[in-house]
Amino acid sequence: VRQVSIVGLHQITVRKENNSGLREMAREVAVGAMANAGVDHIDALYVSNMLSDELQGQKHLGALFADHSGVAGVEALQIRAATASGAAALRVGYLAVASGDVDSALIIGVEKMSGGVATPMIAKALDGRKEVPDGATLISQNARLMKLYSRTYKPPSDAIAHFPVLAHKNAAHNPFALFRDVQFSTEDVLTSRIISPPIRLFDCSPICDGAAAVLLAPSDRANDYTGSPVRILASSVATDRFRFADRPDPLMIRGARLSAEKAFNKSGISRDDISFFEVHDAFSIMACLALEAAGFAQPGEAWRMAIEGDLNIGGRLPITTMGGLKARGHPIGASAIYQTCETIQQLRGEAGPNQVNNPEIGLMQSVGGVASTVITHILGIS
Amino acid sequence: VRQVSIVGLHQITVRKENNSGLREMAREVAVGAMANAGVDHIDALYVSNMLSDELQGQKHLGALFADHSGVAGVEALQIRAATASGAAALRVGYLAVASGDVDSALIIGVEKMSGGVATPMIAKALDGRKEVPDGATLISQNARLMKLYSRTYKPPSDAIAHFPVLAHKNAAHNPFALFRDVQFSTEDVLTSRIISPPIRLFDCSPICDGAAAVLLAPSDRANDYTGSPVRILASSVATDRFRFADRPDPLMIRGARLSAEKAFNKSGISRDDISFFEVHDAFSIMACLALEAAGFAQPGEAWRMAIEGDLNIGGRLPITTMGGLKARGHPIGASAIYQTCETIQQLRGEAGPNQVNNPEIGLMQSVGGVASTVITHILGIS
Repeated sequence: VRQVSIVGLHQITVRKENNSGLREMAREVAVGAMANAGVDHIDALYVSNMLSDELQGQKHLGALFADHSGVAGVEALQIRAATASGAAALRVGYLAVASGDVDSALIIGVEKMSGGVATPMIAKALDGRKEVPDGATLISQNARLMKLYSRTYKPPSDAIAHFPVLAHKNAAHNPFALFRDVQFSTEDVLTSRIISPPIRLFDCSPICDGAAAVLLAPSDRANDYTGSPVRILASSVATDRFRFADRPDPLMIRGARLSAEKAFNKSGISRDDISFFEVHDAFSIMACLALEAAGFAQPGEAWRMAIEGDLNIGGRLPITTMGGLKARGHPIGASAIYQTCETIQQLRGEAGPNQVNNPEIGLMQSVGGVASTVITHILGIS
Repeated sequence: VRQVSIVGLHQITVRKENNSGLREMAREVAVGAMANAGVDHIDALYVSNMLSDELQGQKHLGALFADHSGVAGVEALQIRAATASGAAALRVGYLAVASGDVDSALIIGVEKMSGGVATPMIAKALDGRKEVPDGATLISQNARLMKLYSRTYKPPSDAIAHFPVLAHKNAAHNPFALFRDVQFSTEDVLTSRIISPPIRLFDCSPICDGAAAVLLAPSDRANDYTGSPVRILASSVATDRFRFADRPDPLMIRGARLSAEKAFNKSGISRDDISFFEVHDAFSIMACLALEAAGFAQPGEAWRMAIEGDLNIGGRLPITTMGGLKARGHPIGASAIYQTCETIQQLRGEAGPNQVNNPEIGLMQSVGGVASTVITHILGIS
């Protein structure tokens, strides 16, 4: 397996509504990431997006973005895994460069959710035959998990509310975050509007527009592009029973556990080596479950880490260091590429007031649907 | 680059309407290809489909099919390039195994077009901002190319009609073909119903349901699975200006030329080495243009090959040997995997009455949209 590094990146500020179109947002980050790496040519383009079929009426994004970004001719494909699509595209870019067949791969994640009513389209991440007809959405299914968690483990009533509070605190210093100026307490979370009980408004990541891109190259040529490349130490994907109703223990996110174990085994890295963890906090409960599944807390215990400050920037295992999906925003197809950009910022020591202390290795996870797919990447300076 | 071989396959008969659901069709070919290779485990699953977002309300096919096929837990992603999605999934499977990170990759191509009105969804392969609002569809754009071809090169009026006649002739002996029993003459083509002038009904590949799967493994372990592995000698993707209106010469399919040249250069194979060519004859004109773009005929001349018998089973360069998209059928996301199965049948000498004489190397191309993306694979026994 040829070693792969990230040698360029570009992210734009997440907004409720970006005035640019989908292809213009894609171009902005494509051109930005190429300029950041000092290149005007790439071998391949892998695109992530979830909703353009319905919201923009586009089903052929690879070639469209290649042309609109000025690189018509290159290989261009779209990669999907529902709400984990960004990490899926990063995974394929990794495989392409690792294979030796592709020497430079640009990954674009972009989503323009302001283009229409997104929620029912997002529900297509669930089972259209057995879940959606009963009225299930990603929100209602996460609500069921949150309720089950409370009943099973009986944490304090404000336990899960610490996750969004932390996310918003971290977003304050991220210029690319949607919610830089929105700070709240756990009490504010618990009195915010009910969306799908027990999930409240401040438990939910927002509908928004965003785009980010990274450029991958072989590690042995990474210094041709940048003085501070970041290596992809592991890349892995795992699935679970598709519907969580079919899982023996719905509170154990097996896709997160399996993909983390694969990533640790492949790279020889252990949990203790991880400096920080960008979790997929699309809903508060998912951040809690991901920490437990990845082995950083016992089942039913991850909320204690939040309360005790372990997850803060200065803590034992900082998470959502630039605001996470909750407060940076969750423009779906772009989210994992934002995570990637943020992980690189941390590893390079460029995270400003949110800088984790001497980070060496960053872990990222992205969740598709109600964790039917989970994708894990480990990045490091080396 | 680690060498990659195909070690298992399964295809089901293409039908106007398959009574099974999308996931059941996927499972049938997944289980079939695994059984064909003698395995009950795979490392990864790469899925191709174009229309499930709208027709089946599903946007998370990788994990859904993994679970429904009995391999929940494995890596599973969906890969897209509009109407070339099957070849895109094969490409990613190739990259995954070539990288050394994945040791067995199952590729499922499946489409259930009977699930709704497919044509407007297929048009989303075009530019939703600049083409579709003007009423463009894949049919109307291919019609413009066909008209331009006639005006530019002034071939005989029945020149292009030879392609569908040949496709149907070859389909007669393919048990998996939709149109086994429909034979017609060039005169029949030229008197069939006008769809979008000058394209007539018999110039169009059909709306249909189908699925096929292949299993990939490293070539140095291929004999663990089968006595007759087929090697992927080259895999390449190229794009063009997205809209053909932006291309300097719309009759030169640059994606086909570029991806073929990349494939030839990477593999050291030349055009003269090619025993047969599975072209993407979604419309008659595209078969003609593909032959010219890939360098097998001069611009404006490929129809001569059809008239002179060069493209017949016993000819110089047989094409659409099992019926092509036109007569085997074009269940979009599955089509390139059918091409792959058929190419393997030929290379193994298992093509029955359609057997090409001592074939050594087969070329396959798949076209996304109006050739905005073209994907080329070269397969051989070695």
